[in-house]
Amino acid sequence: MSGAVVIEPITGLGEIGTGDQLGVLLAAAAEIEDGDVVVVAQKVVSKAEGRRRSLDEIDPSAEATELAGRLGKDPALVELILDESRAVIRSDRVLIVETHGGLVCANAGVDSSNVGPDGGVLLLPEDPDASARRIRAEFATASGVRPAVVVADSFGRPWRVGQVEVAIGCAGLAPATDLRGVMDRDGRTLEATMIATADELAAAADLARDKSGGVPAVRIRGRAELVTDSDGPGAVALQREHDLDLFR
Amino acid sequence: MSGAVVIEPITGLGEIGTGDQLGVLLAAAAEIEDGDVVVVAQKVVSKAEGRRRSLDEIDPSAEATELAGRLGKDPALVELILDESRAVIRSDRVLIVETHGGLVCANAGVDSSNVGPDGGVLLLPEDPDASARRIRAEFATASGVRPAVVVADSFGRPWRVGQVEVAIGCAGLAPATDLRGVMDRDGRTLEATMIATADELAAAADLARDKSGGVPAVRIRGRAELVTDSDGPGAVALQREHDLDLFR
Repeated sequence: MSGAVVIEPITGLGEIGTGDQLGVLLAAAAEIEDGDVVVVAQKVVSKAEGRRRSLDEIDPSAEATELAGRLGKDPALVELILDESRAVIRSDRVLIVETHGGLVCANAGVDSSNVGPDGGVLLLPEDPDASARRIRAEFATASGVRPAVVVADSFGRPWRVGQVEVAIGCAGLAPATDLRGVMDRDGRTLEATMIATADELAAAADLARDKSGGVPAVRIRGRAELVTDSDGPGAVALQREHDLDLFR
Repeated sequence: MSGAVVIEPITGLGEIGTGDQLGVLLAAAAEIEDGDVVVVAQKVVSKAEGRRRSLDEIDPSAEATELAGRLGKDPALVELILDESRAVIRSDRVLIVETHGGLVCANAGVDSSNVGPDGGVLLLPEDPDASARRIRAEFATASGVRPAVVVADSFGRPWRVGQVEVAIGCAGLAPATDLRGVMDRDGRTLEATMIATADELAAAADLARDKSGGVPAVRIRGRAELVTDSDGPGAVALQREHDLDLFR
C-alpha cells in the first residue's frame, strides 16, 4: 500500500480568548510542514475573533418571540439566530437558515456548548474564509510554513441522521476537485464531476477529535498536492448558486 | 500529538466480476487487523453482486420516455432509475429519488463510469448493509480478522457544490456516535448530539483514492474503539425517518 494519509489531533492550545493568534499558537503546538492541511474547529476561531454574545443583552423582537414559542427555544437565542441570517429556509421543528455568509445550517451555527468558562453563546466567524486566510498568514509569520487551513463546523443534512463536519472556510486549498473531462479507466468520462475535497478533509479531521471538545485542531498529512500557493477561492465556492438549488 | 488515524489505499484486486468474494480478495491484498475499518467502493460491490445491466435490454415506459425528454437523458436509463426507486423527490433538472433501500440520491445511484470493460451500467447493491456483513464474514473466513466494513458511494448535497462519499452500508460499526447526555468541558450538554461516524469514515477514505477509479478499497486504522463485535444496525440507521425530514 502507498499514499497514506495521516490525521493527528493538535492539542495543548489552552483556552482561546479574543485576539489570540491561532496560527501562531498552532505552529508552536504542532510540527507543521508545507503540504499539510490544518483543520481548525469553528469554535476556537469564533473565540479568537470575539464572537461571543451574552443572551442577557439581547432584546428579542416580536417575530423572534413568536418563533421561539413555536420551537420551544429561548427568544433571545432566536433573535440572535435571525440577526445572523439572511433567509429562513425552514422553521417547522428546527430553525434552518441561510447565514449572511451564505451557509445553510441549523440555528445559524450559533453554539452554546463548549463555549468556555465565560458562558454565553458563540456566533460563527463573520467570514470564515477570511479567518482561514488570516490563520494561514499567522502560520507563515510564526514558522515560515504555509499549510492549507480549513475552518470546520458540524452540519446536519436532509435525509440523513446525524451531523458531519464540513468546511465553512478554507485557504490554500482548491475546495473542490473538478473531474470534468477526466476519463475513467475505460476511457469514459466520470459521472461524479466535482468532489467537495474541503468537506471531505473536514469530515476526516473529525475522526481524530475527542467528542468533549478538547481537540481544537487536526493535522492532515499526505495530500500535499491539494495545497496551493495562493489562498484560492475559499469554501464560499462550495455554496450552490440559488437558482441551481432544488431545496430552498 | 497522539491518536493518529491512518488511511491507506488498498489496490491490486484486479477487475472484479460477478461472484467474486471481496472480503477474501481484500484480505489477500492488504494486511488487515482487528480494529481496522475497511471502506469498499460501491462500484466493486455492485460488480461482485452482478448488478450490471445493459441499457439495450430495457424497454422504457411512457413515463420514463417523457421524463428522459425533459431531463435530456437516455429513456432506458431513466426507466432503470425509476425501477430502482420508491419515490421521486425532484425531477426538475436532475432526478433525485428515494431508492427501494431508502437512500435519497441522484439517479438512484445508477452508475455508468468505471463500470469496467463489459460496459452497461451498474445499479447500487440491493442491500448494502447485507453486502457489508457478507464482506466482513468473508474477511473472517479468509483471515480470522473481523474489521468493520463500510460500503461507500458519492452523493451530492442540497445547498453545497460537489459530492462527498457517504456510507450506504456498514457492518461492525455503530454508524452514528450518540452524544446525547455527554457533557462538554464546562459541564453543559453538547448540542451536536449525533455524529454520523460512518459517513465521516466514508468521506475520509476518499482522501486516499485516486480519482480515475483505481482504488477499490481503503483501510482506516487508529479508531479501533469504533469497531463492534456484532455487525450492528447498518447504515440504514442513518436514514432519517420521513416524518422527521423537512426536505421531501
